[in-house]
Amino acid sequence: MRSRASDSLRNVTLTPGFAKHAEGSCLVKCGDTHVLVTASLEETTPSFLRGSGKGWVTAEYGMLPRSTHDRMRREAASGKQSGRTQEIQRLIGRSLRAVVDLSALGERQIIVDCDVLQADGGTRTASITGGYVALAQCIGYMKKIGMVTKPVLKDHVAAVSCGIVGGTPVLDLDYAEDSTAGTDANFVMTGSGGLVEIQGTAEGAPFSDEEFTQLLGLARKGIGELVALQKEALGE
Amino acid sequence: MRSRASDSLRNVTLTPGFAKHAEGSCLVKCGDTHVLVTASLEETTPSFLRGSGKGWVTAEYGMLPRSTHDRMRREAASGKQSGRTQEIQRLIGRSLRAVVDLSALGERQIIVDCDVLQADGGTRTASITGGYVALAQCIGYMKKIGMVTKPVLKDHVAAVSCGIVGGTPVLDLDYAEDSTAGTDANFVMTGSGGLVEIQGTAEGAPFSDEEFTQLLGLARKGIGELVALQKEALGE
Amino acid sequence: MRSRASDSLRNVTLTPGFAKHAEGSCLVKCGDTHVLVTASLEETTPSFLRGSGKGWVTAEYGMLPRSTHDRMRREAASGKQSGRTQEIQRLIGRSLRAVVDLSALGERQIIVDCDVLQADGGTRTASITGGYVALAQCIGYMKKIGMVTKPVLKDHVAAVSCGIVGGTPVLDLDYAEDSTAGTDANFVMTGSGGLVEIQGTAEGAPFSDEEFTQLLGLARKGIGELVALQKEALGE
Amino acid sequence: MRSRASDSLRNVTLTPGFAKHAEGSCLVKCGDTHVLVTASLEETTPSFLRGSGKGWVTAEYGMLPRSTHDRMRREAASGKQSGRTQEIQRLIGRSLRAVVDLSALGERQIIVDCDVLQADGGTRTASITGGYVALAQCIGYMKKIGMVTKPVLKDHVAAVSCGIVGGTPVLDLDYAEDSTAGTDANFVMTGSGGLVEIQGTAEGAPFSDEEFTQLLGLARKGIGELVALQKEALGE
Amino acid sequence: MRSRASDSLRNVTLTPGFAKHAEGSCLVKCGDTHVLVTASLEETTPSFLRGSGKGWVTAEYGMLPRSTHDRMRREAASGKQSGRTQEIQRLIGRSLRAVVDLSALGERQIIVDCDVLQADGGTRTASITGGYVALAQCIGYMKKIGMVTKPVLKDHVAAVSCGIVGGTPVLDLDYAEDSTAGTDANFVMTGSGGLVEIQGTAEGAPFSDEEFTQLLGLARKGIGELVALQKEALGE
Amino acid sequence: MRSRASDSLRNVTLTPGFAKHAEGSCLVKCGDTHVLVTASLEETTPSFLRGSGKGWVTAEYGMLPRSTHDRMRREAASGKQSGRTQEIQRLIGRSLRAVVDLSALGERQIIVDCDVLQADGGTRTASITGGYVALAQCIGYMKKIGMVTKPVLKDHVAAVSCGIVGGTPVLDLDYAEDSTAGTDANFVMTGSGGLVEIQGTAEGAPFSDEEFTQLLGLARKGIGELVALQKEALGE
Repeated sequence: MRSRASDSLRNVTLTPGFAKHAEGSCLVKCGDTHVLVTASLEETTPSFLRGSGKGWVTAEYGMLPRSTHDRMRREAASGKQSGRTQEIQRLIGRSLRAVVDLSALGERQIIVDCDVLQADGGTRTASITGGYVALAQCIGYMKKIGMVTKPVLKDHVAAVSCGIVGGTPVLDLDYAEDSTAGTDANFVMTGSGGLVEIQGTAEGAPFSDEEFTQLLGLARKGIGELVALQKEALGE
Repeated sequence: MRSRASDSLRNVTLTPGFAKHAEGSCLVKCGDTHVLVTASLEETTPSFLRGSGKGWVTAEYGMLPRSTHDRMRREAASGKQSGRTQEIQRLIGRSLRAVVDLSALGERQIIVDCDVLQADGGTRTASITGGYVALAQCIGYMKKIGMVTKPVLKDHVAAVSCGIVGGTPVLDLDYAEDSTAGTDANFVMTGSGGLVEIQGTAEGAPFSDEEFTQLLGLARKGIGELVALQKEALGE
Repeated sequence: MRSRASDSLRNVTLTPGFAKHAEGSCLVKCGDTHVLVTASLEETTPSFLRGSGKGWVTAEYGMLPRSTHDRMRREAASGKQSGRTQEIQRLIGRSLRAVVDLSALGERQIIVDCDVLQADGGTRTASITGGYVALAQCIGYMKKIGMVTKPVLKDHVAAVSCGIVGGTPVLDLDYAEDSTAGTDANFVMTGSGGLVEIQGTAEGAPFSDEEFTQLLGLARKGIGELVALQKEALGE
Repeated sequence: MRSRASDSLRNVTLTPGFAKHAEGSCLVKCGDTHVLVTASLEETTPSFLRGSGKGWVTAEYGMLPRSTHDRMRREAASGKQSGRTQEIQRLIGRSLRAVVDLSALGERQIIVDCDVLQADGGTRTASITGGYVALAQCIGYMKKIGMVTKPVLKDHVAAVSCGIVGGTPVLDLDYAEDSTAGTDANFVMTGSGGLVEIQGTAEGAPFSDEEFTQLLGLARKGIGELVALQKEALGE
Repeated sequence: MRSRASDSLRNVTLTPGFAKHAEGSCLVKCGDTHVLVTASLEETTPSFLRGSGKGWVTAEYGMLPRSTHDRMRREAASGKQSGRTQEIQRLIGRSLRAVVDLSALGERQIIVDCDVLQADGGTRTASITGGYVALAQCIGYMKKIGMVTKPVLKDHVAAVSCGIVGGTPVLDLDYAEDSTAGTDANFVMTGSGGLVEIQGTAEGAPFSDEEFTQLLGLARKGIGELVALQKEALGE
Repeated sequence: MRSRASDSLRNVTLTPGFAKHAEGSCLVKCGDTHVLVTASLEETTPSFLRGSGKGWVTAEYGMLPRSTHDRMRREAASGKQSGRTQEIQRLIGRSLRAVVDLSALGERQIIVDCDVLQADGGTRTASITGGYVALAQCIGYMKKIGMVTKPVLKDHVAAVSCGIVGGTPVLDLDYAEDSTAGTDANFVMTGSGGLVEIQGTAEGAPFSDEEFTQLLGLARKGIGELVALQKEALGE
């Protein structure tokens, strides 16, 4: 089924500047998973930060109704965002904030919108990886116009999922693998290798410390490669 | 400001089959307006048609939050679709149904999702023009697998906006033109030239019968060209 | 079925001052369609106009649950206004604003509520015709107390629907006619004959330019008569 | 301020059959309080009664936005019914059901819609008094077409408010009296004088048993007169 | 069925200070009905009181999903509070405000949350009785820190339900009694015996003045006992 | 600040059968965090399992408004559950299902309601630990009445949070510790030591593999003790 090695990423492309209007943007493709990410700069900050001198980075996530194999009901039509949507956008926001100096950003907000055009597994990790690129482009724009002067980004950040499929630990699950994985874990790490977020779930039998350590190793390899692609896309 | 002739369409491309999962799809670009349309086949029909032997075609419409110059609030987050969104999706649905033989379709439903990736005026008319292509591709699929046998599509259908800008009647308004137009009208016509829908609005001063007739003439020219592009895209 | 001539309006009465509390009001009856319209003056303006010196006129529309042949669900109970309701209230608002000098109105808002007590076709056009009367009464009140000094109303405005029923173009459709019309169009015009809004829809087969021109002619005749009735009701 | 005696009702008129489409209806006017009530027959019953052979009577209540001195926000626009609205419609429903033999009604439902066209105090009690008339007319219709054969209505029911205003117990409060009343009570009684519902509230100081007894006496007198008007309106 | 006398309360306990964080709190148990009440002090007041120098006391009410015999749907999940919930929280708020000097409270608000941990009839009356204790504790705290100086509470307030069960008037209905009662009434009274609220409902046949007088007498006895328990709990 | 050892749990008590009506229940106290958990048996299953022969276990979570230091808005009043609430109830449901044989349960559903009476950190992990006890009691009831015959529970499951506070890895964070922790992780494990869920988040600086391993070790110790308390509470 899987044609590539168990420790290989799918084919990944990152296209910054895909969207005409946004201060930062990136079309990220991980295999057949395609996410359009935009970073929008707003001169207001959430009320809990007003007067603090600090800014904020937040994320929103959505899927086009037919990004999936069967059509899903449009969340705008059903009148609310699902628990899954809210969980994902909280994760993306936390992950990106982990590498942002909110004081250097100043009292303003960047909203990172991650819209899944086509889904084939790993949409939340692709959103983080591409979200970093859109965010960096937005901050680059702010620097250019003199809106920020100190470094805002403290590190790179990227994410990948790993899982145990048919007894084998594998990197970067597509939808078919994700559906059959016994254990499924998402990892978010910085460019310098620090852990930002770990989410591991036993879908079938519980997993052991050893299995978890193997997944962590695969993630470390994959995220290293993703950060290299981010640097290349941003011309660093 | 306007570099093309007052009776010229913007550059239009129609890419059928853009989406992997949908039975029909089309990426439609009219200048900087980009809409991703999918046609999803569902084996259920609205309750008011149950037992009638007839099917249904309906449309949904959405804009990515940063498809616009300033970021708009995500409708899924605000918990409801705006009046504008509902008005547009009703228009798209009516327009497409005008060329569908609902009895030949049989008791099933096609949902046409029009999601604006980038907006620069004319998103509703682009959705109708691209929606026809996605719908035709979906019906082609149904024919191929023997789900329908009689012709389902009775004609082509496409749409364009026209307006009076600085006193001059012009075809296919972009956002800048739309914002300054004194009168703004959307036209939906069939391939054989029949009128399906007319929506004309005086934004400033009322308009005259003569002005309206000029806009109708421009629309007729533009829609003829759009139908030719539809045929080409569908390989007819 | 139709006892009056194809170019005759139903019996129309306009009763200004029907409501005790409102600054302006009108009970409009077009045949068996009865709409109670009130114009409420509020000393606040929408946020997008704050500081502009300009005012606003907006409309809301509702139907009593048993205004229709079969009882409809109360929108307050279902928790949202339908797409049809929103489309209608946007149309009424646009139509009335077309004859209002928003600068002369000053930074305040008039809300025109159109509540259908009994429905028999043409509720949106009756709302516009009666809405003008309520609005004019409200502005008369504002003049009397010295709140406005310059003329606020630039012209009259009224509306009517026309359609092609059984092959014949007819003026002012009742519900039975509307349900069987092949083409159905709403026209909004000023007292001096300018076009404010045109909405034409093919319910069955597409319609031709000639048919549309015929409907436009009928509308022009009917709206002339409605404006005369408005003047009479307002004692002009 | 009050021109009539402390134990006099306001001028009351009950106009059955006011609405064209409904099986039963009544326009009830109590002074400047005007409520349009319709009774709609539906051939379905709430799920908790399915298979029981019993029917149901329920009520809904609404106020037109400008029925009041200052415009109120439309509940359909705010997306929910207020606590006050829900409390009132529960009271109306309970009161009407108190005189209905639900088994004789059969497994169907009557929905009584009470829409306040103009408010000047006592809208909930007017709704009950007029609601009985609309309900009786609806049941009369059901009898005529043979849908029910046994008597469905066990008695008449009507309602009135009383209060202590400036130290004096008075019958049938208008809005000005209601706003200044120290104690305010609504009474619902049957034609034969049985108590169906009592709701007494101290708006200022608590009230005594004696005061309450006085209000009860006034209510008994007023409801007797209202029931006589109901009989007259229904031609009994 | 009923093991205690017809004029006896169930076993009642009032435990002030049950909640760690709240300024005032009380766990009230009336037989198997258990309600956790907290009184939360907030330094804001509703907008209609801003600048008036007056404060406000309001109540909210909720039931844990499995406080009842069959699980009820969680109101937070269904997205709105039922009409019953709103009616109850309005009653609790009105009852508590009847003994509060809102001017002495100053421009701040106390929110009394009544959450039913276990239900066996009489949850709204238990909420009022326990709500007074939580409120008194909160005001005691405010006195201690000097936030209020004049007496805020003008009297005690407590509540109980009575009903006619199998022809016999009884005090303090449990769920089984409440379900079979022909007439059901809630009484709210002050410590000095003034009536604050009366809500009597005929569940089956209408009731007479005499029956109502008997229920009032029972309530007066029960509320006297409840006020004595309040004083004891508060160490007065 | 912390008076107990860095590898000590807070004082934990588990009281099964706390709620009168529910098939299973448990009051769980972890220090000042108190959660009332009920397990409700329902003879329906979600639609996606109908006909599969399998059952379902799901969880809902709520906080009383004043369970926290400052009062939180009631989710039923705000009309929706927050992203945090939904994330927590999804975690609890997944964790409990990890030890349930859904086929042995049969086509029915158990809803585990976790309502926080008082919060002092670790409410989600306490809900899982107490949820297991309520679930086990519910399944014990089902066994007793012969509703299930095969073993439904495959193992125990419990949860605890760990974190790095002031540079030191500590077990079972209270609110004050959680607010200042640099890294915060929740662990869910079975009685036999298998990992069910890991959620680790860097609140400040990213964390290392070594730090994470230390937290995992602390969790393993704590969960072992919690499972022993579960067995004791259930009399196993």
